[in-house]
Amino acid sequence: MTTQLPAAVSWQDDTLCLLDQRLLPHKVVIEPQRSVEDVFRAIRELRVRGAPAIGIAAAYGLAVALQSAKSASRDESMAVLDGAAQTLKSARPTAVNLAWAIDRVLARARTEASEDIYGVVVDEARAIHEEDRAICRGIADQGVELIRSGCGIVTHCNAGALAVSELGTATAPMYEAHRRGIPFRVYADETRPLLQGARLTAWELAHADIDVTLICDATAAHLMAQGLIDLVLVGTDRVTANGDVVNKIGTLPLAIVARHFSVPFYVACPSSTYDPNTPSGNAVTLEQRAPDEVRKIMGHAIAPMDVKVLNPAFDVTPNDLVTGIITERGIATAPLAESLARLLSSHSAATTQ
Amino acid sequence: MTTQLPAAVSWQDDTLCLLDQRLLPHKVVIEPQRSVEDVFRAIRELRVRGAPAIGIAAAYGLAVALQSAKSASRDESMAVLDGAAQTLKSARPTAVNLAWAIDRVLARARTEASEDIYGVVVDEARAIHEEDRAICRGIADQGVELIRSGCGIVTHCNAGALAVSELGTATAPMYEAHRRGIPFRVYADETRPLLQGARLTAWELAHADIDVTLICDATAAHLMAQGLIDLVLVGTDRVTANGDVVNKIGTLPLAIVARHFSVPFYVACPSSTYDPNTPSGNAVTLEQRAPDEVRKIMGHAIAPMDVKVLNPAFDVTPNDLVTGIITERGIATAPLAESLARLLSSHSAATTQ
Repeated sequence: MTTQLPAAVSWQDDTLCLLDQRLLPHKVVIEPQRSVEDVFRAIRELRVRGAPAIGIAAAYGLAVALQSAKSASRDESMAVLDGAAQTLKSARPTAVNLAWAIDRVLARARTEASEDIYGVVVDEARAIHEEDRAICRGIADQGVELIRSGCGIVTHCNAGALAVSELGTATAPMYEAHRRGIPFRVYADETRPLLQGARLTAWELAHADIDVTLICDATAAHLMAQGLIDLVLVGTDRVTANGDVVNKIGTLPLAIVARHFSVPFYVACPSSTYDPNTPSGNAVTLEQRAPDEVRKIMGHAIAPMDVKVLNPAFDVTPNDLVTGIITERGIATAPLAESLARLLSSHSAATTQ
Repeated sequence: MTTQLPAAVSWQDDTLCLLDQRLLPHKVVIEPQRSVEDVFRAIRELRVRGAPAIGIAAAYGLAVALQSAKSASRDESMAVLDGAAQTLKSARPTAVNLAWAIDRVLARARTEASEDIYGVVVDEARAIHEEDRAICRGIADQGVELIRSGCGIVTHCNAGALAVSELGTATAPMYEAHRRGIPFRVYADETRPLLQGARLTAWELAHADIDVTLICDATAAHLMAQGLIDLVLVGTDRVTANGDVVNKIGTLPLAIVARHFSVPFYVACPSSTYDPNTPSGNAVTLEQRAPDEVRKIMGHAIAPMDVKVLNPAFDVTPNDLVTGIITERGIATAPLAESLARLLSSHSAATTQ
């Protein structure tokens, strides 16, 4: 990146700093977190979002808890940690990564004989952060070969640095290609209803000096018809055993039009997103969200406020529309079920966390 | 319709009344037009929109001009008409229907021997209005057979009563099916960037007690995957000689996903929309609109204000994705070029107007 992107989560000079994503793209506000309550509020109010980013923030949040008790005894410190863990886990109780990261830091603090518990906690939080960065770098290295000089890429929603760590998932190959000096264009779907593409992806890619153009979600097909698109690259919330891809609503039509125009459709994700215990996308219950997300935009009504609305948060892209799935361990290709199992089976235990 | 929909354009008690569409769906304001300047402003400021509706409003606008000169001589009345015609035509100089409707009223006033020019002008404006209604009724009668009991329909943008006359084009078969008591569901694409589906289509169908559900543009594919959709029904701005369909951006991906899920894709339009002089959609220059339509929604920024934007107003749906084109003269089906020529050739002269 030629311009430094503000990190969603950072640890500098013994201070946890969080980028307030609610204010993007209009304001870049990075706030130091002075107490566990600060971190709790930041997670609760979605200032920090994206499962991996929340986990990393909470891990550092345990270190923040100890900052006001640095001279405490080991027992006193462990009591502070336990209280902070309970508070932080309650911020978003359904976020799996949150509890996982907190428990991992607690376990290390309990088992390590050191009197410097604060140092141990910071060290483990940094390890979680660094592992996430390494996964993103792995995805970048695996996926960068797909980005040819001069190509046009469509992406959907935000599977970027703001949701994960510095390279993101779908964006990781883009950042790496840009670092290597390969010229390419990205078209970012605005991603209604919550506009993560317009607010976050367009902002983070432009900030990195990547050539990004914002489009409405129904515009990508026209660009493909004009021959402007060579690749679709999106993230995913879950990949089922058969290779079906659960992702933000609007991913399925993008895959269908890509197939119509013979444009390769790739999905990028950490190997931990693979869920071998769910046989197919049909078995996944898709979240229905509030009608007002569609009736209003940024708080302003754009439709009759009593009109019926269907607002599914996700759709399922069947495996036969997916050209490949890019993970830090390699790229799975058709037949996806076999390819994923071969590539990721040794990791499957982690998905039960 | 079980509930009376406010007409976009109406002539009641010698008064031209226009529905201010800029305020929909939040306010229903119907304004009497007291002068040519009132009508000029209403057209200029998009209070009235849709090519046929603008033509009808302007034709009545000539009658409004004569209301302050009812006792004038024939020569004086013709001078008033000529001045009003010039003013009204300048309101939206590129709108073909506007000049066509005005010239038609002027020609009738010039050739008819009557001293009651006001009566002649009102009569011709009413004729234009009634012909437009008859075309919409013709589309309704032709298209209603496609709407089976219990079916689900997706529509895009607003090809409804607000753009044309009381039945609209794409909506005409829906209004007729509803009048016949056939139960069906409509899913209205919100239609970014200008949200005509959310603001106008959802509003007018709900007002008519038709079962309408608002969705984001990228949601239709998911509904098709769930088996909820049996028919796509949209309007069009131009049908080329080979049957390609130029319509609001987002029509092409809808046609592609419909084909993927074997859902019939129908287009409804007056026969005058057929343009035999343009060989295919490739020959049509597609309007690019202002980036701020995408960067802002209802005046509120939703993206970085300096981000690049592509905002094409239309896309081209190739004829092989179109199941049929519903006109007041019948439904053209594959092979579309031959079918359209056979059905509409006697009308082709009108397209040079």
